[in-house]
Amino acid sequence: MKPVIGILAPFLTPSQRAAIAAAAEENGFALREFATAEELEENCAECEVLYGYLSPSVLPKARALKWFQSASAGVDQFCDPALWQNPDAVLTNSSGVYGVTISEHMICLVLMLMRRIPEYMACAQRREWGPQMPLRSIYGSTIAVVGTGDLGTSFARRAKALGARCVRGVKRSPAPAGPCYDETYTADRLKEAVADCDVVALCLPHTKETAGMIDASVLAAMAPRTLLVNVGRGSSVDQEALIEALNSGRLAGAALDVMVPEPLPKDHPLWSAKNLLITPHVAGNMSLGWTCEFDAQLFCENIARYRAGEPLKNTIDRTRGY
Amino acid sequence: MKPVIGILAPFLTPSQRAAIAAAAEENGFALREFATAEELEENCAECEVLYGYLSPSVLPKARALKWFQSASAGVDQFCDPALWQNPDAVLTNSSGVYGVTISEHMICLVLMLMRRIPEYMACAQRREWGPQMPLRSIYGSTIAVVGTGDLGTSFARRAKALGARCVRGVKRSPAPAGPCYDETYTADRLKEAVADCDVVALCLPHTKETAGMIDASVLAAMAPRTLLVNVGRGSSVDQEALIEALNSGRLAGAALDVMVPEPLPKDHPLWSAKNLLITPHVAGNMSLGWTCEFDAQLFCENIARYRAGEPLKNTIDRTRGY
Repeated sequence: MKPVIGILAPFLTPSQRAAIAAAAEENGFALREFATAEELEENCAECEVLYGYLSPSVLPKARALKWFQSASAGVDQFCDPALWQNPDAVLTNSSGVYGVTISEHMICLVLMLMRRIPEYMACAQRREWGPQMPLRSIYGSTIAVVGTGDLGTSFARRAKALGARCVRGVKRSPAPAGPCYDETYTADRLKEAVADCDVVALCLPHTKETAGMIDASVLAAMAPRTLLVNVGRGSSVDQEALIEALNSGRLAGAALDVMVPEPLPKDHPLWSAKNLLITPHVAGNMSLGWTCEFDAQLFCENIARYRAGEPLKNTIDRTRGY
Repeated sequence: MKPVIGILAPFLTPSQRAAIAAAAEENGFALREFATAEELEENCAECEVLYGYLSPSVLPKARALKWFQSASAGVDQFCDPALWQNPDAVLTNSSGVYGVTISEHMICLVLMLMRRIPEYMACAQRREWGPQMPLRSIYGSTIAVVGTGDLGTSFARRAKALGARCVRGVKRSPAPAGPCYDETYTADRLKEAVADCDVVALCLPHTKETAGMIDASVLAAMAPRTLLVNVGRGSSVDQEALIEALNSGRLAGAALDVMVPEPLPKDHPLWSAKNLLITPHVAGNMSLGWTCEFDAQLFCENIARYRAGEPLKNTIDRTRGY
């Protein structure tokens, strides 16, 4: 009997489904596509491989699972060892797929804050011709990118292309962050890296190290003109400290696509924080054709690697969380 | 007696003023700085050269005027021959100064429409976690830039750097629009150029030819997914036709930083058009330090050219209007 690949990926187009079916066939797998989370959960026990957007609650039932490729890049919710029946099962993520869409979202949010768009939209709602207000620019700016993976580097490249004067990469290891970064800082020098910046961009996974990393003391190290953007995981920001910094005017503005909790409840003080833009974790959604295309390609490539016993792309170290 | 340069340029910093004073001195001019439009108007008769933001009403009183350098790039309001006492007086503009700030504003507005920001901001105002909506991207897009001067080309470069697949330049003369354009169209092929585009960006001066150029038939040639952005002059768009195209859903969205009239009156139907973003002619305001720096440098360079009898940079053909 052929080993079974189970997929729950409603975002795929027919041609992407066909490509995955062909890769499965070619490598000796039976493919089962599930239409709903419930259907997947009922049938997951027979699957050696799973792919798509799953709930972590599926994993304890996936008794035959040897490999799960998540369609999301953040996989912290799958790193609890108690979830896995087989401790040697491999977890891979979709890092590399979301860089384009999320970095464009970041450029959008940063420019909105720099160009006073929330104020101008409020004027337009009242049918008022707004005043000339001081605007700012990415051109000539200093930007710290905290987390220099796919998201951070996609953003750093775009900021540099728009004329940012100095782009600093902040990362764990001391090796240079890459050619689009003017400077590299290790995480222990975070406060130096964020000092005197126009923009601090957070592109971090949720891990033990990143949780609460942007606390009151790091916010206090930022200049009053700094704009903070977070598209990684909400847990990296001390939200109470952020709200305080925004409402007191010690920080010029912020934009969050991720926060804690999600969805944000109606009575949460983030909704009313000063100069804060909120988008509901949409920067990396699967509505862009080429995001799905990249993701399906990555899975097809990993199917062949898995069959050949080669190391899979984007393998996660579950003890680190990324 | 030295010839007099009169300036009305409240945006200048002390060091920019000092640079202009030095250029005037070096080239044998007396410099008079005016604090208000009234003061300038009272004293303009003695000025051989004027620089800054002037009202057209000053020109008929400027009897000794031989050269006026406008601090704005659009100078249509100064092109009426009846304004000029001396028909040989030279008009120069500030083209080249605004490309950076205006093109960043354009990127911001285009991405806001692509990322459904107005809808997400409306959700946030109601403290509601918005739905996942289809987002779009500059990466992979097709963009027509109508008017390939400083503004258009600054935007084209940025769009290309963000991964636009095809950037078309639309211009009067058939010579290639420049290296950042994938294709060049002459203005008589406008409807072909705007067909099947994600974005149509208008960067046109006000002239006889551009007035009403984007009429109902050109709007009808655009695909339903097209987003229209205008940062040139409001007169190039037939606003009634635009409102109709937006409200009927034949056009996906638009963003205007310029319109007719400015300021827009409270009862104007543009305020309530569907999927329309309005900013009040602020994309090129003088609040950015380096915009002022570029503008002061341009004037200093032209002072030396004027004294040496060389052609001035940015000389306007008043019969064409740019």
